[in-house]
Amino acid sequence: MTNEYLVRIDVERPATVPDAEWDAVMAREAERARGYRRAGVIVRIWRIPGTRSNVGIWSAASASELHDKLSALPAHPYMKIDVQPLAQHYVEL
Amino acid sequence: MTNEYLVRIDVERPATVPDAEWDAVMAREAERARGYRRAGVIVRIWRIPGTRSNVGIWSAASASELHDKLSALPAHPYMKIDVQPLAQHYVEL
Amino acid sequence: MTNEYLVRIDVERPATVPDAEWDAVMAREAERARGYRRAGVIVRIWRIPGTRSNVGIWSAASASELHDKLSALPAHPYMKIDVQPLAQHYVEL
Amino acid sequence: MTNEYLVRIDVERPATVPDAEWDAVMAREAERARGYRRAGVIVRIWRIPGTRSNVGIWSAASASELHDKLSALPAHPYMKIDVQPLAQHYVEL
Amino acid sequence: MTNEYLVRIDVERPATVPDAEWDAVMAREAERARGYRRAGVIVRIWRIPGTRSNVGIWSAASASELHDKLSALPAHPYMKIDVQPLAQHYVEL
Amino acid sequence: MTNEYLVRIDVERPATVPDAEWDAVMAREAERARGYRRAGVIVRIWRIPGTRSNVGIWSAASASELHDKLSALPAHPYMKIDVQPLAQHYVEL
Amino acid sequence: MTNEYLVRIDVERPATVPDAEWDAVMAREAERARGYRRAGVIVRIWRIPGTRSNVGIWSAASASELHDKLSALPAHPYMKIDVQPLAQHYVEL
Amino acid sequence: MTNEYLVRIDVERPATVPDAEWDAVMAREAERARGYRRAGVIVRIWRIPGTRSNVGIWSAASASELHDKLSALPAHPYMKIDVQPLAQHYVEL
Amino acid sequence: MTNEYLVRIDVERPATVPDAEWDAVMAREAERARGYRRAGVIVRIWRIPGTRSNVGIWSAASASELHDKLSALPAHPYMKIDVQPLAQHYVEL
Amino acid sequence: MTNEYLVRIDVERPATVPDAEWDAVMAREAERARGYRRAGVIVRIWRIPGTRSNVGIWSAASASELHDKLSALPAHPYMKIDVQPLAQHYVEL
Repeated sequence: MTNEYLVRIDVERPATVPDAEWDAVMAREAERARGYRRAGVIVRIWRIPGTRSNVGIWSAASASELHDKLSALPAHPYMKIDVQPLAQHYVEL
Repeated sequence: MTNEYLVRIDVERPATVPDAEWDAVMAREAERARGYRRAGVIVRIWRIPGTRSNVGIWSAASASELHDKLSALPAHPYMKIDVQPLAQHYVEL
Repeated sequence: MTNEYLVRIDVERPATVPDAEWDAVMAREAERARGYRRAGVIVRIWRIPGTRSNVGIWSAASASELHDKLSALPAHPYMKIDVQPLAQHYVEL
Repeated sequence: MTNEYLVRIDVERPATVPDAEWDAVMAREAERARGYRRAGVIVRIWRIPGTRSNVGIWSAASASELHDKLSALPAHPYMKIDVQPLAQHYVEL
Repeated sequence: MTNEYLVRIDVERPATVPDAEWDAVMAREAERARGYRRAGVIVRIWRIPGTRSNVGIWSAASASELHDKLSALPAHPYMKIDVQPLAQHYVEL
Repeated sequence: MTNEYLVRIDVERPATVPDAEWDAVMAREAERARGYRRAGVIVRIWRIPGTRSNVGIWSAASASELHDKLSALPAHPYMKIDVQPLAQHYVEL
Repeated sequence: MTNEYLVRIDVERPATVPDAEWDAVMAREAERARGYRRAGVIVRIWRIPGTRSNVGIWSAASASELHDKLSALPAHPYMKIDVQPLAQHYVEL
Repeated sequence: MTNEYLVRIDVERPATVPDAEWDAVMAREAERARGYRRAGVIVRIWRIPGTRSNVGIWSAASASELHDKLSALPAHPYMKIDVQPLAQHYVEL
Repeated sequence: MTNEYLVRIDVERPATVPDAEWDAVMAREAERARGYRRAGVIVRIWRIPGTRSNVGIWSAASASELHDKLSALPAHPYMKIDVQPLAQHYVEL
Repeated sequence: MTNEYLVRIDVERPATVPDAEWDAVMAREAERARGYRRAGVIVRIWRIPGTRSNVGIWSAASASELHDKLSALPAHPYMKIDVQPLAQHYVEL
């Protein structure tokens, strides 16, 4: 029994973080996110045009499991995250 | 595996609904809500002071199951509902 | 070249619309939505738990084409619609 | 005569606080929060998925007593706190 | 042990309520409010200039007691009420 | 002829202000506020539970006089202030 | 000693008010407003382009006096009013 | 010397307006809007996808002239209008 | 042909700007603002009580000219500015 | 098949960026923006009076293409960008 969630992630880079450190975090972030995509944790994901933000459909057994996955993202300390739970729609039944 | 949700319900009575009809809906509503409390669907529930709104902790296997329970409330047509998913906090582990 | 959009639809039934009329509109609405799903206009769609609202991923060649599809929904007169354009995310490339 | 409150706490770590100092504050914070849980000051508490925020049910004789408990939290200087008073709901009577 | 609350009340008269009925409700409302003032339930109350809204300091043993007083107001069905709990300030100690 | 105002003050301590300097400002702030209380400039004042914010009833002949009193507060540079003018309510006449 | 206020007035005509009645209210409203302008109660007033709303500078000895003037406007039952108190600016001293 | 404005218009049809009357207003509205387009009052105009709202670039000598044009729209009684003044950008000089 | 605008200016001093530099900017700011007042660019201006913000009536031939005047203010880099265009009101005709 | 978008860009200069570096970025920004204007990527663009913000009409085949153009702006790291998709309006057909 899995739940699907609509997850919006806004990324804000503090002025005090030097380029090298930021690029390293972003590289690890990309790798982790691609892993989640292969594992089906990220079902679909899009870029909000003009921003560093993204919106995606995530899948997890529970909100606790989803929290663990999100907090494990390398760029998590720089993220504002909003999670909207999703129920099945009759059109998809 | 159950999920807990923070559910806020604001009830708005349209001016066009006569007293008798409203009271009947509220009676069926109270009965259904008490049933949910006994069954553990409603874990805790409180009144927002001064209003007809309530906030509560609900439990369900998934957002789809939660949706079915909420839509089955007799007063549902008069409700604005906001659902916040809840993850476990280390303090409760 | 198609564009994907995140579309949120809130449905509000005026107190003045009788049950029979509302049910007829909802039946035609369900039929149209299922048609869009088969045609790939609706890529995915979910119910916002506890509400009559939905959020979905829609696909169209342009915002004008998307507008025509949305305005053709039988329940359109009772809808508040928000459309967020989506760009490709590197994780999906 | 105790009052129950719905308390939302958002934690924001300033970029200027070094890791060692932050981890020390978080350790003292966890200890204090577990103490409040044992003493019934914190009735229930959950993590908002994807964030460092939490929402909980707190119990105190008055808003003044609640204020003292909240201000005594080691991480209080880094917190934005919102307190919603809760009244009894007929379903729980 | 009493609690003080900052209570904002916005009154909205539906277009469907005839003058005679409205005036009768307002008369009973004034009487009830003056009673609360004499009894110290309403500590202070002011009009928000230009509106039918008011803001006041109310006193009650608990949020549940405050809820009962507010719901007993004759004009309650036409009210939007916001309650902010108040703690003691060192300047008043 | 005096006017009463509902004044909300949110205090935000910049990360760059060292403890010693902050404590000195707070000490002068407490002294000034107590003086205003004795002089009736502050009629009543409460702490918003869990925060460094306060809400109070202030009295002044005019908004200009109120401005002078507020700007003279030692912690004023760290304050966000909202002033709501208050008119007499018939219940207090 | 007079106070100046920035007053925004939004006018909303309910669908249930027939033209004749509305036009009569608007005629009395215009007359009253011109009277206030001559008397200096309205110092300046402008139309928010595209709307029935206005924003103006009003003068009164107190918020209570301002409230009486605003409530005496014939169209007051159809108004949402916001009052911002104004203090003297050094540039005008 | 003309000014350009960004004008957003949201159209809301009250439930009490019958189809025939609404269609007649919309026909006159379309005619007036096309006239404005030919005259350069409307420089460009777009539909907000999924809604009856539009956003456009309007041109007028002053806000007063713009107000007259907007209020003369046949569907004006059913409109919420927001006007944003626009200054020249160096890229267009 | 001049236009009048309602201009709100919020001033926020960054923690990194030393007193001497800030005072120098403020001195030049006061001088420039007084010049604008004499020239009729600033028609009226008030202080928002308790804050460093102001609200004023400005006059300019166009939004472009207004922009130039506002950007030329010495404290402009520390300002958040909102400009509301104003149309003539029948009460002033 | 191109899409038009209403794009609002707010520019915020961090206190830590020295003048020389900022001016260099702004020079490259101006050059890039003029290039986009010549190429028809920027159809029209205006300054929001009193601010460093702009609003414009951009044209791109898709949201992904628009994202690439916006992210390539030299000042992009200092921008908050909002993109509103635009559909054709009957008045322009």
